[in-house]
Parts: sequence; C-alpha cells; structure tokens
Amino acid sequence: MSRWQPNARGRLEEAALDLYTERGFDETTVAEIAQRAGLTERTFFRHFADKREVLFGGQDALLELFVGRVVDAPQSMPPLEAVGAALMAVGPFFEGRHKHARRRQAVIAANPRLQERELIKLSAIASGLAEALGRRGVAESAAKLTAEAGVAVFKVAFERWIGDGRRDQLPHFIRESLDELKGMAAGG
Amino acid sequence: MSRWQPNARGRLEEAALDLYTERGFDETTVAEIAQRAGLTERTFFRHFADKREVLFGGQDALLELFVGRVVDAPQSMPPLEAVGAALMAVGPFFEGRHKHARRRQAVIAANPRLQERELIKLSAIASGLAEALGRRGVAESAAKLTAEAGVAVFKVAFERWIGDGRRDQLPHFIRESLDELKGMAAGG
Repeated sequence: MSRWQPNARGRLEEAALDLYTERGFDETTVAEIAQRAGLTERTFFRHFADKREVLFGGQDALLELFVGRVVDAPQSMPPLEAVGAALMAVGPFFEGRHKHARRRQAVIAANPRLQERELIKLSAIASGLAEALGRRGVAESAAKLTAEAGVAVFKVAFERWIGDGRRDQLPHFIRESLDELKGMAAGG
Repeated sequence: MSRWQPNARGRLEEAALDLYTERGFDETTVAEIAQRAGLTERTFFRHFADKREVLFGGQDALLELFVGRVVDAPQSMPPLEAVGAALMAVGPFFEGRHKHARRRQAVIAANPRLQERELIKLSAIASGLAEALGRRGVAESAAKLTAEAGVAVFKVAFERWIGDGRRDQLPHFIRESLDELKGMAAGG
C-alpha cells in the first residue's frame, strides 16, 4: 500500500462486497469496484489478480497458516488435536472480520460458480492438512481422514460463527464443533 | 433398454471410459462414444444427458439411497451410526464396479473441471444427509457436522477401496474409516 492510498486493499474489498451484494458478482466489473473505492483499476490489480480473488485471496494465507501450525504442533499431540489447534489459530485472521465474512458468504451463496470455487479451496485446505500430517509421520490414509474431518469441523464452525451474533470468537466455535464431533464419535 | 440393444447403458459407459482414458475427457465426443459402443447418438441421449453424466449420473441414485437409509434407520440409532449404516448400504450399488470405479476416478483426477463436479456432487450428498438427519429430529447444526463427517468417511473409504486390490468390499472400508474416525476422536 502506498502512502497516498491508505488501506487500499481494505477499501477495494469493501467496495467489491458492496457491489457484489447490490448487483451480483457477475454483474460487477473491476472498473466499477475501483471507482467505488476511489482508486484506479491499476491499484486494484496491484492487490488482486481478478474480481474473484477479492473473495478467495485470503484462503491461500489460511492454508499456509494451518499447514504451519500442524507441522509445528508438539509431536506428542494426536493428529486430530493438532488439526484442531491449527484451525483455532485462525482467531487473529478473522478478528474484526465477522461482518465481512458474513457478507462474503451471502455473495457466495448467491452464485453457484463461487460455491464451486469455495469447495475447491476447502478441498485444497484438506489436501494441505493431510500433507502436513504426513510430515508429522501420520500414515497417508489416516492423514486424509483426519484432514477431511478437520475441514468438516471448520466448515460447520464457520457457518455457526457467521450465523451467530457474537464476534471474534471463531476459535470458540471450532472448539465446540470439534468437541461435538468427538462426542458423536464416542456416542455413536 | 430396448431388446435390440442389450445392456446399452453399460456398453456406453465402457466405451466412454475407454475413450476418456485414451484421449482425455475434453477430447471425446458423444458421437465417438456411441460409435465405439456400436450404438447411435440417439441411444446415448436416451441414457445420458451429456458426456459428463456418464461419470456422474450414478451419484443422484447414490444420494437417494443414502437419504432413504438415514430416514429409515431405527430411531434409537445415534446420528453418526445412522449415517454410517446408510453409507455401508452402497455395497450392492458398487458390486462388480471396482474396476469401473477405479478407471472413472483416474479420468476425474486428470481433469480439474471434473474434480470440481465431483466436489459439488459430494457437497450435495452432505446436504442431503444433513436434511435426512433433520427429519430424524437432529438439530440443524449437529446434522451438518454429522453429514460432513460422514462424507469425509465416505471419501476416504472410497479412495482406500479403489487403491486396494480387493473387490466388492466398499462397506468394509467404510466401517474401517468410520471406526478410525471414532478412534481418533476418542484418542485426540
């Protein structure tokens, strides 16, 4: 961000979400997003590859965060718990982003192609988690199962968080969903 | 199937898989599939909406099977166990289809757009399972978590089954993966 465009990225995100919400994702152009943010298209492309990246750019950082946490978790930690701890590390990532996340989800829910993209990103997160578990010495097949279960927990926790009035407590919902999965597994 | 075209559907499936494997999915036309099967395009379209449906047509039947089983499971059965029992009911569905499933998976793995379609179909199965659990009186949020966990089990079990030399034992891998999830949940 240059000094003449304070928080350009954030402003572009907000402008994009406004327009996606008002008109729909397909009907919005990059030129319109830049204009709404009071910035140039050139600045837009300095921050995002395309208008879809405004919605999904963060997920690569998320994946990196998760993988790093799983790899760095104490070796004594059981795989599912290591994944749970990694997922709960998203707290700061989504701090102050409750409203943003909720609006983003509404835009995605309104557009089947964006839903596909979301599924692909989640699938990439599952693969990344499985690989990270592999680096901890977890067998491939067990790693995949743990990773998929972790993503299931994350999906459900994220939905609960978005649907809930409280803010900045995504880790709380992740812990809750993980414990619920454990309870189900024990009870079923 | 008319009496003059015994097992037309199966022949079309085989011909399609042959061509998708040899040339790639994108490079194969319906005309070529019909020709390889010794049938007409007209016959093809009597069985499949398009060439993609050859790969994914069965998943609607699968969803229907799962939903029916979850709804009909004894009311005393815990949700995750009801989902597990429903998943294990796929046995006859995939009987004698081990080689077919393995070839199908290789075609899908080679094509990102087909992978997307697969993810969407799995997501639809998760939604269907969650809805079926809802009809059993399971709270929405718990139903979603159970359904996602069930799909995670199914995905991993299916991969194991395909990767394994044994045949007709998909339910065995589902039971194994489900028990493994439970073990992880208990141990983690």
